[in-house]
Amino acid sequence: MVLASAAPGIFSAGLDILEMYQSTPERCVAFWRALQDAWLNLYGSRLITMAAIEGHSPAGGCLLAMSCDYRVMAEGKFQIGLNETKLGIVAPFWFTDVMLNTIGHRETEKALQLGALYSAQQALSIGLVDKVVPLAEVMPTVEGELKNWLQIPAAARVITKTSMRKAVLDRLRSQKEKDAQFFADFINRDSVQKSLGMYIASLQKKKN
Amino acid sequence: MVLASAAPGIFSAGLDILEMYQSTPERCVAFWRALQDAWLNLYGSRLITMAAIEGHSPAGGCLLAMSCDYRVMAEGKFQIGLNETKLGIVAPFWFTDVMLNTIGHRETEKALQLGALYSAQQALSIGLVDKVVPLAEVMPTVEGELKNWLQIPAAARVITKTSMRKAVLDRLRSQKEKDAQFFADFINRDSVQKSLGMYIASLQKKKN
Amino acid sequence: MVLASAAPGIFSAGLDILEMYQSTPERCVAFWRALQDAWLNLYGSRLITMAAIEGHSPAGGCLLAMSCDYRVMAEGKFQIGLNETKLGIVAPFWFTDVMLNTIGHRETEKALQLGALYSAQQALSIGLVDKVVPLAEVMPTVEGELKNWLQIPAAARVITKTSMRKAVLDRLRSQKEKDAQFFADFINRDSVQKSLGMYIASLQKKKN
Repeated sequence: MVLASAAPGIFSAGLDILEMYQSTPERCVAFWRALQDAWLNLYGSRLITMAAIEGHSPAGGCLLAMSCDYRVMAEGKFQIGLNETKLGIVAPFWFTDVMLNTIGHRETEKALQLGALYSAQQALSIGLVDKVVPLAEVMPTVEGELKNWLQIPAAARVITKTSMRKAVLDRLRSQKEKDAQFFADFINRDSVQKSLGMYIASLQKKKN
Repeated sequence: MVLASAAPGIFSAGLDILEMYQSTPERCVAFWRALQDAWLNLYGSRLITMAAIEGHSPAGGCLLAMSCDYRVMAEGKFQIGLNETKLGIVAPFWFTDVMLNTIGHRETEKALQLGALYSAQQALSIGLVDKVVPLAEVMPTVEGELKNWLQIPAAARVITKTSMRKAVLDRLRSQKEKDAQFFADFINRDSVQKSLGMYIASLQKKKN
Repeated sequence: MVLASAAPGIFSAGLDILEMYQSTPERCVAFWRALQDAWLNLYGSRLITMAAIEGHSPAGGCLLAMSCDYRVMAEGKFQIGLNETKLGIVAPFWFTDVMLNTIGHRETEKALQLGALYSAQQALSIGLVDKVVPLAEVMPTVEGELKNWLQIPAAARVITKTSMRKAVLDRLRSQKEKDAQFFADFINRDSVQKSLGMYIASLQKKKN
């Protein structure tokens, strides 16, 4: 399975910030449950999953990429990272867990405290992506890599993948409701709503 | 203690595949218990242990090398890695634990899903070995390194080593029987026996 | 908060060895409790903490540096590392935990078994420090970096930092007395006192 984007310049812009702004707690909880399930299916997938990162990949976009088995990113101006802290919000514990499994403790601590966004070359140097190629070669590179992975006996590969991701998957599975409630409470705090409002205003200013 | 091989071109070919093919469950369990004990003694050894990798080092050979305190590998055509997945089998959890302690989570996940075998230079770049030198210099390099390690006060070094490896050793110690039974059941599945049969046939073809 | 030293050529020489030599068990326990509390406050600090390493940084000095959020070290002859093993003593488990969070399992195991002291360049290459600059630029570099970190919304940064360090902090918090007692018993062993006595004599010889 190849994760790619139809929108030029953007792999995934992450969660829809508008969905979090001036919403109701019920709507927030429902939104969060849908995200949890999507991620549990992706990170726990028996399929080979590859990210073709042909554009910006902040926050939730970075989570999706990190949850794949392999990541190819376009060189150039695009950025990738969990930048939640910069918006005044906090990456959920399972975002953190996936990043720990990808780049280790020290890089994760620095990345999350700063809400860092990395260029493709920086991402490659810390192991956040596996390969960097020119934009036009991202998809062919992913397809070539996929052919290699498809030669591995599937049953053994799936058992291996599942056993290595089980602890992180189980950690969210065991506290889905608590996590959703925490998100809804946190996002509806006055201070957080104010931060999000300012961020949305700055985005709209850029557009105009 | 220096782990080396008397066979030119091979450090250790890993477990004897013939021992797993068309065997009895009892024989498989006995074989596996012997391997568990050998590994518990090596990984938990109070001695300084060094691997002189002067040849191929797949599967169990890679486990032995990773379980030492230091690894020197010959440059050239030799390969090292846990390639179980390529044979349609799965590396036991304690092989995985030792690899996690050596090269971290991301590299281990990729290595095990692909059953990857690395050249000496690749192994060096991901931290799977500590030094790469020409074949003739492997043993002198190991001996030189051993002299450095022998200058460290032994009691303090042993406490340090033991405490850092305890969690992984205890994990196997607490489930030796279950692990041996799992191996015997798994290896005697029809599909696995078929994979092994094909692998053995391909080896014999190469020989002829 | 910037951790720096007023003494030229030394960041922190670590614990006062004289405090451990020919002391009473009560005095050792009190000394150790003070160290535990100082470290719990530093590693768990809500402030941004940066180490300006302008000199040697062995043992406890290395612990302090690793416990900061960012480390800038002067290039040149200075060394950093947990060198306890070389003195015949053993780094406490929480020193080990902080090093694991900084440079990962393999590098920590090697560093602690050998009691290794690293040059600034070596420390950079294994991730033990974040940046190496000429001595005169250490403080300006730290101040520049601090400005970057201060731009991050503080509440989100503090929650992120706290949650990533909680497990290691809690591990010491839950066994402070046991750890202090172990230290006092260990340090007062005849063999350890003998090692320390020889080490102090060698330092005094160097001075004269």
